Amino acid sequence: MTRIQDVYPDNRVSLREVGLRDGLQLVKKFPSTAGKQRWMRDEYGAGVRHFEVGSFLPANTFPQFVDVREIVKTIASLPGGHGIALTLNERGVNEALASGVAEIATVVSATEEHSQANARRSREQAIANVKRLCDLRDASPHRPIVNAAISMALGCSITGAVDPKEVLMLVEKCLEAGVDFVGIADTVGYAGPKQVGDLTRAVVKMSGNKPVCVHLHDTRGMGIANASTALDAGARILDGSLGGLGGCPFAPGATGNVVFEDLVFLCESKGFATGIDIEKLISVRGILRAEMPGETLYGGLARAGLPDRKTSVAA
Amino acid sequence: MTRIQDVYPDNRVSLREVGLRDGLQLVKKFPSTAGKQRWMRDEYGAGVRHFEVGSFLPANTFPQFVDVREIVKTIASLPGGHGIALTLNERGVNEALASGVAEIATVVSATEEHSQANARRSREQAIANVKRLCDLRDASPHRPIVNAAISMALGCSITGAVDPKEVLMLVEKCLEAGVDFVGIADTVGYAGPKQVGDLTRAVVKMSGNKPVCVHLHDTRGMGIANASTALDAGARILDGSLGGLGGCPFAPGATGNVVFEDLVFLCESKGFATGIDIEKLISVRGILRAEMPGETLYGGLARAGLPDRKTSVAA
Repeated sequence: MTRIQDVYPDNRVSLREVGLRDGLQLVKKFPSTAGKQRWMRDEYGAGVRHFEVGSFLPANTFPQFVDVREIVKTIASLPGGHGIALTLNERGVNEALASGVAEIATVVSATEEHSQANARRSREQAIANVKRLCDLRDASPHRPIVNAAISMALGCSITGAVDPKEVLMLVEKCLEAGVDFVGIADTVGYAGPKQVGDLTRAVVKMSGNKPVCVHLHDTRGMGIANASTALDAGARILDGSLGGLGGCPFAPGATGNVVFEDLVFLCESKGFATGIDIEKLISVRGILRAEMPGETLYGGLARAGLPDRKTSVAA
Repeated sequence: MTRIQDVYPDNRVSLREVGLRDGLQLVKKFPSTAGKQRWMRDEYGAGVRHFEVGSFLPANTFPQFVDVREIVKTIASLPGGHGIALTLNERGVNEALASGVAEIATVVSATEEHSQANARRSREQAIANVKRLCDLRDASPHRPIVNAAISMALGCSITGAVDPKEVLMLVEKCLEAGVDFVGIADTVGYAGPKQVGDLTRAVVKMSGNKPVCVHLHDTRGMGIANASTALDAGARILDGSLGGLGGCPFAPGATGNVVFEDLVFLCESKGFATGIDIEKLISVRGILRAEMPGETLYGGLARAGLPDRKTSVAA
């Protein structure tokens, strides 16, 4: 049984590499299984512990995740390594449970319109799926962590603006259903830091002693600013992808998760120790370039390197 | 006589396009005078009012600013347009005064080491230059606005870390010398938002009813996050350049001012009206591409466009 406090300690920030799932939604060429394993192992060597490893969605629609069971095993073999897999329905949940993955994630769309367009179901049906996921977790021998993310929580590719009251209503239903924590996602990168801070504070308050995840895309260059505000507002789990790889097939233009390397620098600069070596992390970009030569990699740290701190000064 | 409250109203944020000066420090090909004028006029058409137009440094060292007097005239011809020119010594100040430019900027390095390396003078001599600039302003018929920026205020390319107490000492001396306002510059993009917020708050407090400018580089992807915190800390003048053009010849790797378009989006998202039309602003990038085809332009808004706000929701 995975205890959430071991995986996501409340006295520090946990940074999750989501490149192996969210990052692969739109890439032109899929990395090989061995490439994914090298990517993960080398990032683990740099200090990263949390990896979204793939999804249990139909392999004919998402062939990039056909090897998800192997990737689950790879991360489980690394001491302290934590794998997360995405599921959207009961079949996927059962497959995820059978794989032994340490955490199962699911998604509820913030708007009825996006829920129907993205998953052909109502938000109520999505919440019922969250409840079913929690029941299956409770009946499972290894009881993985379960989280539900509210996608389009800060702006929707179909409706435009999103009412934060609707998001909070869905967060409450997910918590009532029994998830270990909820996340909010700026899936299409519509938000600025004020909006992110306001919503994060409300979700943190509602979540009580459960951690809160904020999943941001850098679509409009606000990713790091939004992450900074999310940290100020009490979020302690943040997602990013190496080189900013990523996107969403249901959200045109939503390219780019927050750049993981820059996220590490941000956290360290704010006094949150991450245990991650930025220079080692940057060197892993070579694997992405070799496996997916057609993808643009982003990032300030990779371009400029770490600041040269010749002297240290007490603040 | 220019009244500072007219140029930099304290109840709103003023965004300054510094691409025509700071942005041209390191470019491979200089834009033509006509190109600069189109760039400025089209940004003016998008709502931008504050432009750093060039510097009065020796034209044999900085040939990209040989046409600074013409550019000063161009911005002065546009109603409400405000030009700023950089000077580093008395000769430059006299030339700037003679040009009729509305604002004269100067720089004091935060560290003795950078002051000597960059301008071959001590910080004390730089402060004496600020005082001389203020005296010459007072004796001039049109009394331009005068500002002094502390460069390397958040990290130094030579010494590494910078003691904020040293920066505040220099800020105090500049204010005593009679500048209309001071700025702090993260010239080499070393800082994260916590450091920027802490220093900005202290400078805002010290500046009393004078505005404070924060000049940021996006070297390590922290530019927008730092700008957001600077606004929270009370800065009301922020610098940026279209497409993130920029750098500093004395700070290797310090490429890229904060992207102006993204800065506008940030301010608007935080409720600060800028009067700038982002889509018109983005279209001006075509002039930069035509005039300087070898430069990489950055920016999230230019890549993704504005969010599609189909519905509006009361917060």
